[in-house]
Amino acid sequence: MLVVMRHGASAADVERVVAIITEMGYAAHPMPGAQRTAVGIVGNDGRIDAGRIEALPSVVRIIHVTQPYKQVSREWRDEPTIVTIAPGVSFGGIEVPIVAGPCSVESEAQIIRAAQIVRAAGGTALRGGAFKPRSSPYSFQGLGIEGLRLLVRAREETGLPIVTEAMDDEGARLIAEYADCIQIGARNMQNYSLLKAVGKLGRPVLLKRGLAATIADLLLSAEYILAEGNSQVILCERGVRTFDPAVRNMFDLTAIPLVHSMSHLPIIADPSHGTGLRDMVTPMARAAVAAGADGILVEMHPEPERALSDGAQSLYPDQFKALMDELRGVATAIGRSVPSAPQA
Amino acid sequence: MLVVMRHGASAADVERVVAIITEMGYAAHPMPGAQRTAVGIVGNDGRIDAGRIEALPSVVRIIHVTQPYKQVSREWRDEPTIVTIAPGVSFGGIEVPIVAGPCSVESEAQIIRAAQIVRAAGGTALRGGAFKPRSSPYSFQGLGIEGLRLLVRAREETGLPIVTEAMDDEGARLIAEYADCIQIGARNMQNYSLLKAVGKLGRPVLLKRGLAATIADLLLSAEYILAEGNSQVILCERGVRTFDPAVRNMFDLTAIPLVHSMSHLPIIADPSHGTGLRDMVTPMARAAVAAGADGILVEMHPEPERALSDGAQSLYPDQFKALMDELRGVATAIGRSVPSAPQA
Amino acid sequence: MLVVMRHGASAADVERVVAIITEMGYAAHPMPGAQRTAVGIVGNDGRIDAGRIEALPSVVRIIHVTQPYKQVSREWRDEPTIVTIAPGVSFGGIEVPIVAGPCSVESEAQIIRAAQIVRAAGGTALRGGAFKPRSSPYSFQGLGIEGLRLLVRAREETGLPIVTEAMDDEGARLIAEYADCIQIGARNMQNYSLLKAVGKLGRPVLLKRGLAATIADLLLSAEYILAEGNSQVILCERGVRTFDPAVRNMFDLTAIPLVHSMSHLPIIADPSHGTGLRDMVTPMARAAVAAGADGILVEMHPEPERALSDGAQSLYPDQFKALMDELRGVATAIGRSVPSAPQA
Amino acid sequence: MLVVMRHGASAADVERVVAIITEMGYAAHPMPGAQRTAVGIVGNDGRIDAGRIEALPSVVRIIHVTQPYKQVSREWRDEPTIVTIAPGVSFGGIEVPIVAGPCSVESEAQIIRAAQIVRAAGGTALRGGAFKPRSSPYSFQGLGIEGLRLLVRAREETGLPIVTEAMDDEGARLIAEYADCIQIGARNMQNYSLLKAVGKLGRPVLLKRGLAATIADLLLSAEYILAEGNSQVILCERGVRTFDPAVRNMFDLTAIPLVHSMSHLPIIADPSHGTGLRDMVTPMARAAVAAGADGILVEMHPEPERALSDGAQSLYPDQFKALMDELRGVATAIGRSVPSAPQA
Repeated sequence: MLVVMRHGASAADVERVVAIITEMGYAAHPMPGAQRTAVGIVGNDGRIDAGRIEALPSVVRIIHVTQPYKQVSREWRDEPTIVTIAPGVSFGGIEVPIVAGPCSVESEAQIIRAAQIVRAAGGTALRGGAFKPRSSPYSFQGLGIEGLRLLVRAREETGLPIVTEAMDDEGARLIAEYADCIQIGARNMQNYSLLKAVGKLGRPVLLKRGLAATIADLLLSAEYILAEGNSQVILCERGVRTFDPAVRNMFDLTAIPLVHSMSHLPIIADPSHGTGLRDMVTPMARAAVAAGADGILVEMHPEPERALSDGAQSLYPDQFKALMDELRGVATAIGRSVPSAPQA
Repeated sequence: MLVVMRHGASAADVERVVAIITEMGYAAHPMPGAQRTAVGIVGNDGRIDAGRIEALPSVVRIIHVTQPYKQVSREWRDEPTIVTIAPGVSFGGIEVPIVAGPCSVESEAQIIRAAQIVRAAGGTALRGGAFKPRSSPYSFQGLGIEGLRLLVRAREETGLPIVTEAMDDEGARLIAEYADCIQIGARNMQNYSLLKAVGKLGRPVLLKRGLAATIADLLLSAEYILAEGNSQVILCERGVRTFDPAVRNMFDLTAIPLVHSMSHLPIIADPSHGTGLRDMVTPMARAAVAAGADGILVEMHPEPERALSDGAQSLYPDQFKALMDELRGVATAIGRSVPSAPQA
Repeated sequence: MLVVMRHGASAADVERVVAIITEMGYAAHPMPGAQRTAVGIVGNDGRIDAGRIEALPSVVRIIHVTQPYKQVSREWRDEPTIVTIAPGVSFGGIEVPIVAGPCSVESEAQIIRAAQIVRAAGGTALRGGAFKPRSSPYSFQGLGIEGLRLLVRAREETGLPIVTEAMDDEGARLIAEYADCIQIGARNMQNYSLLKAVGKLGRPVLLKRGLAATIADLLLSAEYILAEGNSQVILCERGVRTFDPAVRNMFDLTAIPLVHSMSHLPIIADPSHGTGLRDMVTPMARAAVAAGADGILVEMHPEPERALSDGAQSLYPDQFKALMDELRGVATAIGRSVPSAPQA
Repeated sequence: MLVVMRHGASAADVERVVAIITEMGYAAHPMPGAQRTAVGIVGNDGRIDAGRIEALPSVVRIIHVTQPYKQVSREWRDEPTIVTIAPGVSFGGIEVPIVAGPCSVESEAQIIRAAQIVRAAGGTALRGGAFKPRSSPYSFQGLGIEGLRLLVRAREETGLPIVTEAMDDEGARLIAEYADCIQIGARNMQNYSLLKAVGKLGRPVLLKRGLAATIADLLLSAEYILAEGNSQVILCERGVRTFDPAVRNMFDLTAIPLVHSMSHLPIIADPSHGTGLRDMVTPMARAAVAAGADGILVEMHPEPERALSDGAQSLYPDQFKALMDELRGVATAIGRSVPSAPQA
């Protein structure tokens, strides 16, 4: 940590900073410059509260050298973490599993049909929302526990493991019981009570990046889950807020190599929410695999024009089949592979 | 709602759109243009699911004319809503109450001292966190229920009503019991389960804008609370994510007149989080009042350099006194007034 | 400057960094931490090219302690610079001049009528574009030199000095001849050739903030003008790009106290472009003055519904008169004043 | 175009809008809704000035159905435009040429060495700045015309065509004389005087996206060049401003399929500026090709640690060779190819 002093800070002000750092149990290292003095803190274990120093007279700002997260970092664990959500379905290794399905579970026929299409095309897991976070309280909010039961029916039918979103503690407990992987959505990325709750459930967690979250924010949210003893966390890039009305979100694929450089956790990408436009999903899914994504999460609906939510960004079954073929090609080109569906 | 067709869309595609709209029970109004055809939907009551139409062939995009929120809108209720959190402490009228206090409740001595300073300077209510959402799981997370008890002690001592943040259902129930106003923080603005929960508690709610929330998003989140029967909602601008590292957030004061034009709910401003820099708090608090804010939420700590959180953006007691004087002047200049503290 | 090394960087890598710094003529100061080593550079005069060090093995990043601008900074000159564009019309002191007029000069009748309205209401200077930067090549591009002649006519008629925008070197030379202050628009804030050119013309310059410029970027662009020997620069906040489609730009008023803390140059605010909505102009102009703006730039058109550009954000004459009254009140409340028009 | 009226707008207000539209020579189509009336404009040829209508009483906003650009649009020309900068070096077809080289031309030895490395690895064209836009006036500004001469020497040596940036009219004329393709940098994307100038020079133009430009803004800037009769324009995605300090820019690869859907112009990607971090360049270059980029622009320096600018984002020669191999694999996987260098 580096404490930058105001130009012309008095010797007394610099000494006061040094004294407080020493009082906190660290060594202070003043560095006079041509324009300003800075004071280095040596031996910082990452738990210093900068606020106390930032509040001192003549302190301009605090520069953090060490990141505030620990267990999620590459420096904590150098080997990639491999998260297995079902036998044969793992994220973080050479394989790039494809998780597909409709935005919402709407009916038994719809979800079973979707699962069959996913499986037939070579998808590895099934997504589908039973509890839906919707911007408007008047939009369809999901089938709830009935939706979870239908997902289980689809799994029985096809063997595909299930990924579905939890919006609160109670939902998370139910999902831990019925499904294979608990998704935390973008809007709840900093719902710390929920993060702690899923940290205790011991199920794999798919944590989506918030709408304006930095990569450091995303890693800190994952740290909440690891701090509860659950290291089975898959991160997910799904686009961030943008100034360009042409797309729903700005899909930030640099997040993928960036997470790989900073953390041992796997990261997958969701080009459906990442762009919000069906015609952009295929090229951007290819780009995500080329960037090194450890999996793809994609919306596919048997009949997009009848979807109760997100119809405009859901692929048609034929488009999904074509996408699978393209992803296999790109994965091979970079020395990875798209696994086939697990044995039913 | 307006459905924009691709340039060169076939007559069959246009007819299909018209047919679906008619099937949904609305009147379709095709409008051929020099470059494209658009189809207007007449009689839309705001509940049409655009996804279904957006998914049709040759549909380029859907343009929403009507906003998706209802009860929060000016069109639903023309008179400003006045939210009273304690006798004599109201938001939304001529008066501009000042809510001040430390980021976190740290000890009995600290919170009582803070409350006395707030009251002496003419502040109207006391803020202080008992449950703290912190980016890092290793930062101070607040005193919890003990913090609530200390806030109650400070209220007994000074008569100032209490505003404090809830992070989950259980916390919200406790706060409804101990405090006068339940704050929902920026990170939980789209935690819909929590919004529904506080909607049912019947206490005034202070809803802060999310880090990348549009004004429409903020109003939709408020709609969740109103839809549960609780119209006692105060909105709060507290800055959004920015590309400029010089400040913690970008303080978007246009939100104030914009909310006033779109909604009947009161909106206050938090220049402490809005800027993240102590020296910016005073000029930006003045600016917020001049822009028409219905109240100010500001961090003040008896000893900022000893604060356990947000020390760098907390005012010193002397700065707070000076701020109160300046705000009274600006409020008077625009025909409003800063009320004094309620009778103890 | 601080060089942060990768966790586990070898001693050889650290020594290489130290060697290069020493070779460049500065003193290197290694600071081993619990997690990483950082190397401080002492005696940096602000001209070190970080790229060379950033490229070394095991260097994670470079942290700049000293800002790259010089002459524009408070540390270079502590007293506020006062920029006088005409006798009695100065920016940077106690007075807050109001510069108003239409987006574009359209005709002799229009600009003279506009100038008369501005003067009658107490405005201090006249704005109006002769050369217009328009997003589309098919939009009205301004009257050019004829527009400058009409502005001179309006000045003769009313005594108001003229502020108008230059888009290239040739235009700048003409404007220096005809007008009192050369405006550089947001789109050209980093057109360095143009900045150097106006730096040599010796006329006061009004430099608008770019659509995604940080405050440091804005100051660096001003530095280009000062580096040519022209210190008569007025900065202008006019809103930055936003994710919220409800407004044209996000008006970042914190820029005002921030510039005041970093630089001696005056800064004014343009609520017309800053919001893009006529109904937001008045409250946000008040807010700008309350935040400490050294002047206001505002669009007013005798007949906004007939304006050839920016009609939707131009005030009606009556609104402008009311605005002037409100601004006088707010300025007085914070110990400043709105000057009246100069003697004709 | 659609004119949305305020809820409760009077019949007189609606009629006034209809009258003005009719007066402008278009047909007006009122569409009463449950909450608001909207008025459609039929026969709009894209040149209506919305400002005039937006300024009318009770008009809430104007919705544009037709885009303001013309010649750059897919609807104007359905076939992709192929831009050839030298015999055998074309952008917009099946081939994906790689343009590489240092940020700045620094010396004869440096640029010739760079060109040889580019050629040997299979690069197709040479980049290198002679005129450099630098945020600070005190940074290295390029060798100017001497830099152009050295580029010509490198072309003679290797046969690689040259792409280099123009910052003003005079520089553009020189570059048109010496080089094969004139680059317009991000900071000058809306320098309309410069766009018109290069539109008249008849040389291929590489137009980079501005730091906060929407795709529509980028296309409108290209329209300025086409409107002067020059349709040889290559667009370039190079990252936009971001809130995440972890990277220099946010690399928006969705721009690639989006431009392809909206325009017939080719678009390439610059992962060096797009990320600002050497280690991110290779994965993001792969991603760009997978997303459908029509070329890659990448910084490579013979000795990055001695670069006078952008050292931290320049690849080492070995990294560049490895990158070329990876790009060939990804291109093949999606049915495209990376061409080899033209005959010297």
